[in-house]
Amino acid sequence: MNKAASRLIPTRIDGYGPIRPFTGAFDNLGVVKTSPTRMCSAVPGRSKLLSSVEAAIQACGLRDGGTISFHHHLRNGDYVLSMVLAAIARLGLKDITIAPSSVFPIHAPLVDHIRTGVVTGISTAYMVGEVARTISRGMLAKPVIMQTHGGRARAIQAGELHIDVAFIGAPTADVYGNINGVDGPSACGSLGYAAVDVQYADWVVAITDNLVRYPACPIDITQDHVDFIIPVDSIGDRDGIVSGTTRPTSDPTGLQIANTAAQVIAASGLLREGFSFQTGAGGVSLAVAAALKDVMLQHKIQGSFASGGITGLIVDMLHAGLFRTLFDVQCFDLHAVESFRRDDAHLGMSASMYANPHNRGAVVNQLDAMILGATEIDLDFNVNVTTGTDGVIMGGSGGHADAAAGAKLALVTSRLNAGGYAKVVDQVGTITTPGETIDVLVTEAGVAVNPQRNELRDRLIDAGIDVREMEELKTLASRSAIRPRRAGTSDRPVAVVEYRDGTVSDVVTAA
Amino acid sequence: MNKAASRLIPTRIDGYGPIRPFTGAFDNLGVVKTSPTRMCSAVPGRSKLLSSVEAAIQACGLRDGGTISFHHHLRNGDYVLSMVLAAIARLGLKDITIAPSSVFPIHAPLVDHIRTGVVTGISTAYMVGEVARTISRGMLAKPVIMQTHGGRARAIQAGELHIDVAFIGAPTADVYGNINGVDGPSACGSLGYAAVDVQYADWVVAITDNLVRYPACPIDITQDHVDFIIPVDSIGDRDGIVSGTTRPTSDPTGLQIANTAAQVIAASGLLREGFSFQTGAGGVSLAVAAALKDVMLQHKIQGSFASGGITGLIVDMLHAGLFRTLFDVQCFDLHAVESFRRDDAHLGMSASMYANPHNRGAVVNQLDAMILGATEIDLDFNVNVTTGTDGVIMGGSGGHADAAAGAKLALVTSRLNAGGYAKVVDQVGTITTPGETIDVLVTEAGVAVNPQRNELRDRLIDAGIDVREMEELKTLASRSAIRPRRAGTSDRPVAVVEYRDGTVSDVVTAA
Repeated sequence: MNKAASRLIPTRIDGYGPIRPFTGAFDNLGVVKTSPTRMCSAVPGRSKLLSSVEAAIQACGLRDGGTISFHHHLRNGDYVLSMVLAAIARLGLKDITIAPSSVFPIHAPLVDHIRTGVVTGISTAYMVGEVARTISRGMLAKPVIMQTHGGRARAIQAGELHIDVAFIGAPTADVYGNINGVDGPSACGSLGYAAVDVQYADWVVAITDNLVRYPACPIDITQDHVDFIIPVDSIGDRDGIVSGTTRPTSDPTGLQIANTAAQVIAASGLLREGFSFQTGAGGVSLAVAAALKDVMLQHKIQGSFASGGITGLIVDMLHAGLFRTLFDVQCFDLHAVESFRRDDAHLGMSASMYANPHNRGAVVNQLDAMILGATEIDLDFNVNVTTGTDGVIMGGSGGHADAAAGAKLALVTSRLNAGGYAKVVDQVGTITTPGETIDVLVTEAGVAVNPQRNELRDRLIDAGIDVREMEELKTLASRSAIRPRRAGTSDRPVAVVEYRDGTVSDVVTAA
Repeated sequence: MNKAASRLIPTRIDGYGPIRPFTGAFDNLGVVKTSPTRMCSAVPGRSKLLSSVEAAIQACGLRDGGTISFHHHLRNGDYVLSMVLAAIARLGLKDITIAPSSVFPIHAPLVDHIRTGVVTGISTAYMVGEVARTISRGMLAKPVIMQTHGGRARAIQAGELHIDVAFIGAPTADVYGNINGVDGPSACGSLGYAAVDVQYADWVVAITDNLVRYPACPIDITQDHVDFIIPVDSIGDRDGIVSGTTRPTSDPTGLQIANTAAQVIAASGLLREGFSFQTGAGGVSLAVAAALKDVMLQHKIQGSFASGGITGLIVDMLHAGLFRTLFDVQCFDLHAVESFRRDDAHLGMSASMYANPHNRGAVVNQLDAMILGATEIDLDFNVNVTTGTDGVIMGGSGGHADAAAGAKLALVTSRLNAGGYAKVVDQVGTITTPGETIDVLVTEAGVAVNPQRNELRDRLIDAGIDVREMEELKTLASRSAIRPRRAGTSDRPVAVVEYRDGTVSDVVTAA
């Protein structure tokens, strides 16, 4: 039975349209058609250089009601989104939809643009900070569309998310639009999210603080995709790339969970020559990687690849020979950026190659084990990483639901409680990742296995791992909770949570 | 006045359809729309490996009347085209159109498939050998469409050339379809032509003689574009990559022409820091490169890039620091293959990035000087590299017309005579490259400048170069000709010569 599908979801939402409810993780595969791209052919001899963002916006003919996109490789150090929106506001444009691959605290000026009606729609895979809080209070005209990283690539490819102008923050660009992410003062490494936007947008504008003579070398995004180049003083602050934790936790409970998770992976039978792995950048997730590193060294196992957003810790595993290759859609820290520049085995991948369910085979499909975080997880193994206990948006899927669907072993690590709230609950506040794609929950009080994975459950028990029922973990969690989750106060939809295939797994209402 | 446009061309040809005549090299730029791609989404866990070409053809649902494509990086050593057509014939399929980027003598078995009606249509940019002769005799049901390399990319992108199944000869492929051209027994280097096919074909089948564990590294064509992988014993004979000359001529007349060509480039004002350059693989063209090498070394000039099919001689210029980068759409010899594998500054490019007039800016647009060959050149500077003096097809544009249109200086080198025939003529047998895009003809008896380039003419005269009228060179050529060109014997169209924008510059009739 599919619990995510049973969630009460309206059939239509104003500002979003008709809703196709989520029915199952692999229900909408099959034959698809990509959207045609509109392009303006280059006239030989004509320069692509323009002197200002305003000039580019005008050259692209952006109008009221248009859609523009951004990528988030500079993360909380990104200046490009705010720079472009300021120019759009100066030009008096209104009713713009923005499609940044993620939104960070640095994008707080967006709140004013929402207030003044310059921006009325947002599609993104992740949002945190003042913008997310503003949206949760219901200030945006249309509900935000919360996608997965792979779902964003799919929606762009399908033409559901049509981009009029894609703005590319280019750490290095030449005068004819060849771009790389590895040179220049704002080097951020892989440009995997931008790679999809430039394929399907009507217009592509590169904004760079490192304009080089032709041709740039290496090249990550090629000139045949770029209409205009704007030189500016700075596209961002590299120090903002590292936002949040990127080192393994040192907390004893976190370490205990991480060690158990590593035991689960070993017991699953997947940790053999050619093992493939992905983990997020949270402290426990990274501690799992550190624990695996020891096991792999001890048993002389070389993995095939690690993927995802790449951290320095994963780079160290590459350098130690524990993986043959890395697939990198974005660098999470400067050590990863440096490795992306230098290491031939540190490969870039587009967001589509990474996680798009509607291509001929994404990298997530090749994953053995994926370590996932959770704000909450429920009895049906549904995971929420979108909203906090107060119902306010503070994240989003990113690649969470994508990797869970692709990996042979999708493992969630979570404490039973945090901040006085239970994290293992009856029903999550928001279904970000449907439980049918989650295999195991690892807590400090034991491990729960999805009832659909009995063979895995037997393996874990045989290995002496403390396997519990989900119900039991939930009871323990609620017993030590000192605060009740806040009930919803409004019916007004502020965000539509799309599964990677474009169906809707949940709707977030105003908090 | 546009002489190419005045050519008498029918308004419609059976088996081709209505004809848009060529009107001018830059008449059809502007807004274009790419074709949507039909794709079958991967189901996680399903293998892409198939045991035979027949199995792949069936899995792709190829039917009578379908279109399949090939790329020619293994050149006269390619086994893939014949292997696939043999399988298609065994399956009893008929009326297939093939779209190989080029056709070589090794593809002679195709003649039988034409005879038996298995193959009834061909689109290609170049053909030489028995297949070309067979077609010139009128044996193919429909006229061949002769494209430019950039025009082929454009036609695929526009959906004019719709590919049902693209077959990729993969020197290395992993089990999930990541491909590179640099490893394995059939390593051929850049896969630039195939890069376009995989973007737009309904189905993509990789045929490899070097199946490696996942993931291949490096990766030139990514897994998200590939449906099936077929391991076979051999995809080709690398020694066939070098077909024809790839060393500079040692003939005194050829050397004289090459030296004059180098003087013309120097006098043009383009040979300065950042100079960019392309040349074909003919003996005189390579001698021009060798002569330029000396000038660049002497004046300590570093060029920005050399592009095109890349030869060992151009690689030597990279290694000598005479160019910062190379843009490589195909390697012309094994020295180039080795460099493509090793040199970070030796960059691959897709056929679209190389030469497609309908993208946001091709590499040819950035060329300073292009050295072109000619079977014939006429009073209007029109060049024929498609048919011989007997009217039989023995070549085709390849990138000839593309680079001529893009380069600031498109320079044709030619002797006045060859094999007893005049090469400078009143009117070429076939217009491959319209004269309006040719700037200079260099012969052993002097140099002719396109009348539209008076400023260039003045520069050459100031530099003491022997500038003549085209009429004069033609008279000299006809005076020493001992054989008359054979007149056409038939009105039956056997090939439609498309300019890069899809208009028709000429029609070849049966010889």
